[in-house]
Parts: sequence; C-alpha cells; structure tokens
Amino acid sequence: MSLLVTGTIGVDTVETTQSRADNVLGGSAAYFACAASLIHPVRLVAAVGDDFPAEFRSVLESKNIDLTGLESRAGSKTFRWHGRYMEDMNDRESLQTDLNIVGEDPPVIPEGFRDSKIVFLANTHPAVQKQFVEQLAGPHLIFCDTMDLWINAFRDDLLATLRIVDGVVMNDSEAKMLMGGTDLIKCGRQLLDVGPKYVVIKKGEHGAMLITRDALVSLPVYPTEQVKDPTGAGDCFAGGMMAYLAKSGRTDLAALKMSLAYGACVASIAIEDFSMRSLQAADADTVESRMKQYREMLTLE
Amino acid sequence: MSLLVTGTIGVDTVETTQSRADNVLGGSAAYFACAASLIHPVRLVAAVGDDFPAEFRSVLESKNIDLTGLESRAGSKTFRWHGRYMEDMNDRESLQTDLNIVGEDPPVIPEGFRDSKIVFLANTHPAVQKQFVEQLAGPHLIFCDTMDLWINAFRDDLLATLRIVDGVVMNDSEAKMLMGGTDLIKCGRQLLDVGPKYVVIKKGEHGAMLITRDALVSLPVYPTEQVKDPTGAGDCFAGGMMAYLAKSGRTDLAALKMSLAYGACVASIAIEDFSMRSLQAADADTVESRMKQYREMLTLE
Repeated sequence: MSLLVTGTIGVDTVETTQSRADNVLGGSAAYFACAASLIHPVRLVAAVGDDFPAEFRSVLESKNIDLTGLESRAGSKTFRWHGRYMEDMNDRESLQTDLNIVGEDPPVIPEGFRDSKIVFLANTHPAVQKQFVEQLAGPHLIFCDTMDLWINAFRDDLLATLRIVDGVVMNDSEAKMLMGGTDLIKCGRQLLDVGPKYVVIKKGEHGAMLITRDALVSLPVYPTEQVKDPTGAGDCFAGGMMAYLAKSGRTDLAALKMSLAYGACVASIAIEDFSMRSLQAADADTVESRMKQYREMLTLE
Repeated sequence: MSLLVTGTIGVDTVETTQSRADNVLGGSAAYFACAASLIHPVRLVAAVGDDFPAEFRSVLESKNIDLTGLESRAGSKTFRWHGRYMEDMNDRESLQTDLNIVGEDPPVIPEGFRDSKIVFLANTHPAVQKQFVEQLAGPHLIFCDTMDLWINAFRDDLLATLRIVDGVVMNDSEAKMLMGGTDLIKCGRQLLDVGPKYVVIKKGEHGAMLITRDALVSLPVYPTEQVKDPTGAGDCFAGGMMAYLAKSGRTDLAALKMSLAYGACVASIAIEDFSMRSLQAADADTVESRMKQYREMLTLE
C-alpha cells in the first residue's frame, strides 16, 4: 500500500559530549522517510527554502523516497535546529531554533499523492496536520505524532486532529502532559477515548507500548551500545512502524506488533551515527538481520 | 534445586494517594519468598523481634516456605518502615525507618540450609551478605541485590561482595550510581568487569535487562493497570527469577530469559495489592496464566 509522510525537513547542528555534527540533514519527515524507505517506498511532503543543500536532496533521492511533494520555495529559508545532548542522552537542550519556512504556509499534498493509503503526519502544528488530512481522498489509515509545544499552546487544535486520525504516536512525557496523568496505561486509555483506535507510546530507551481497546502490548528497544546521536529516533521508529503496516497492508494485532518491532530495529540503526549516516549505509538486509536478533531476544521457551 | 533467600522481614506502613495499609508484612526476604514460593519451594533466613505478629508468620507458613531459618530474637524489635508513594508511583519518600533487629547481629544460616544450591542475598549490608556466602557449602549459583545506602556508604564492602557472587540484580539508578555512568548497558558491562557473570538491571515499569559477556537481553514488564502498591516489586521480580532458575536447574541463556519472564509475571501480581495480599491469593496457575499472556505478547510473526 502507498505510504505518505508529511512533516519538516531541516538543517541540524547536533552536539554530544563526545562529538558534533554541523549543518546536517534533519527534520521529522526526513528521518521518517529515510527509515521507512528501508522497508517500503515512501512519498514525502515537506517544504524547504532555496538554501536547501543539493547534497541533502541527493541523500533523499538515493533512498526509495518519492520527492514529488518536496517543495523548494524561492525566497524562503529552510528550518534550522541546533541542539546539545548531555552526558545522559535522555537530556538535551535546544540552543537555537529558526522556524523559517515552517512558520510560513505549509506545503500542499500533490494530486498524485492524495490517494495515499497509509499516512503519517509527522510532528508539526496540529491545525496543519488537520489540513493535510482534508486534502486526502479517504486513506486507509492515518497516524499522527505531536510534541509538547502543541500540547501546551494548541491543545484544542491537537484534540481536533486526534479526533480524525486512526492512530497516534507520542512520547511518554507528552502523553502524560496531554492527559494530565502519571500512569502511562491510563493516559493511553484516555487517548483512546479522545478518538484514535491505536495509541503508541514511545518510551525512548525503554521501548514502546501499544494500547488499543482490546490489547495492551509492551515491547523493548533493540538494545544497542553504539548510541552516537538520538536525534530523530522517534521519527525513525514511526517510519519503521508505518512502513511495515504499508508493506503488509494489515492492522490486526499481530501486524501492529510486527510494526513496533520494525520501528525498534530501524530506530536502533539511526541512533548509531549522526543525521542519516547509518540509515544511508543500511539496507533491507540490515533491518532483517536486526529483526532476526530482536525476535530471538523475545522468544521464550 | 534447593533455593535459599537471606534478607529482611519487616512491618510496613504504606501510603499511596488512593489508600493506605498500616502495619502489614513487608521486607525484602518476605516479598522474595512469597513470590518465589509460587514457583518453587524456598528456604528463608531472616531475623525478627519478639514483637513479630503471629499472623505474619502464618502468612509465610501458608506458602511453600521453609521457616527453619527464621530467627525470632527475644528482646529485639522487628524492622519497621513507613513510606508514602506520590501520584507518580515511581516517586516515594520514607517517612520513618526503624532498623531495630537489622542493626543487630545478623541471623545465622541453619546447618540444614548450608547445602542450598541457588541462593539469593536480598538487600542488606554487603558485609553481612559476604558473611552469608562464607557459611554456605559451595552453592551452585549466588545472586545478590543491593541499594543506594550501601553504594554510597559501603562501596568497598559492596565491591567485595560483588566479586564473590555469580550474579547481581539491581535497579537502573543504583547501577548508574555504582558505576558512575549514564548508559545502562555500559554500566552493566562495567559490573561484569567487577566480577559477576550475570547482571540483571531492573527498570521498574520499564522492565529488565540481562547483561552477560555474550548476551544482551531487554524484556518489558507484564503490563498491569491495577498498580496499588509497588513496594517489594523488585524483590518479587528476583523471587520469580531465582525460583525459575532453581526449578529448571539451568543457567543457559534460554533459562535466564525465562527467569526474567517469571520475575516480570510474579512482580505484576504483587503490585496489584498491598503487602503480600495478592501473592497470598495467587497460586501456580495464576503465574502460568500470566506467563502464557506474556509469551503471547512477545511472540512476533
């Protein structure tokens, strides 16, 4: 089934205590697309300025990503983010964020993408996410992501978006913030009451949880010792997840569990280097090899 | 194989935001033993004062627990703890701790218990844990637990104990504190360098991780929505784990993974009520039923 992602593409500068990467390809839709493309072709909708480096476009082109929906807007500047991770990589601070084109009109979904069957609305303003949905011709399955900014400042918009999507993928801290609770499972149940049929809560290094009206599943990460840059891990998780759902064309519980597993494996690859570097070096075999090990890890006698 | 636990038995008062339980049975060895006894018979070594309620002894007697090593010391008082959990049950404060008998000479392992094959040294002073080991006649497998107090104030004693045990079970925060790092996997590897062959890191609601020289396994909790009192969850996890190792008589990777799974299932039962109440109401079938569901949750296509 066709897979579409909408979101941001940016130029990131990332510092860790060990190393740094200046002006590298980043953004929720870029991470999602590079991760998903290891499993299934993906259509990308995002906007960049005319300062967007040609070599970043080449990175995306080298993957199984349809760039028909990548708008290059004359006179605009690409989104930029500069962040720094602490010794404990669960903590980071944003040193600078230049919204640039993300503060302008959103891109439009091209005609040829409007029949997309599986859609992921990566993190952006919830009202923009809703506009994207309205441009689509009855897709099969829509998931969205969000972040603390929208939860705090545009709660009603976010709730309106949650009412029209099939699933939501969010961080544990965001789920607690939105629902005002401390128990993740209870927060997940409350999110189901808002509207989505599928709630996926990302817990960073602690894995992810799937909550539906009938099921409660907790799965760990694919453990890796080579964490170099966690930026985009959540987007890559969603990329692996949605790509498997698109590839399989299923949303039964077994498929949803497999999708979480693919998400875990693809995210583990992404965090082993800065930006898209390890995703660029990976292919379908890399993913399947991790899936084999992940499945073995979870197999009990 | 015979299973022995050494540790504390206490009288707890536990408050949560929803409810409270006054003067109930608690202590690391009590939780461990009640949990383990659902899977395998367990020998208990602990000391209580002459104020220890007869009905608490009856609770332990009603389970598959050999109380030959439960010393009732005339003129001494039983350990007491009073704690309060916050809305987020990962946070708690100790309102009062009366060491009482735990500050006196430790109990002695009875002659008939010294041939125990599988031994768990539940949390107590590491020098006391070492003395217990010295009383044993070449057991097959010894694991220990510890806590922040010993890490901070008796680090050398703790390292000496870690050098003579086969495995250690500790919280994520304690592993980081002891090894001075922020990356759990790296801390686990450093713990292996200290001495134990098996490092099990408990991550509370996020499951547990097993780190050996050859393997790295992360498993989730058995998700439960009925968390009433998390006291003793870690001891119950260890109880389920060690009981499975004793029952199976194996320490290969497949058995170690099964032991973590049993730990997860037994701990999930314990936290559904105060003190030993839900463990008292449970039996081997309760555990096997959760194991079946846990295995299903982890089974990927």
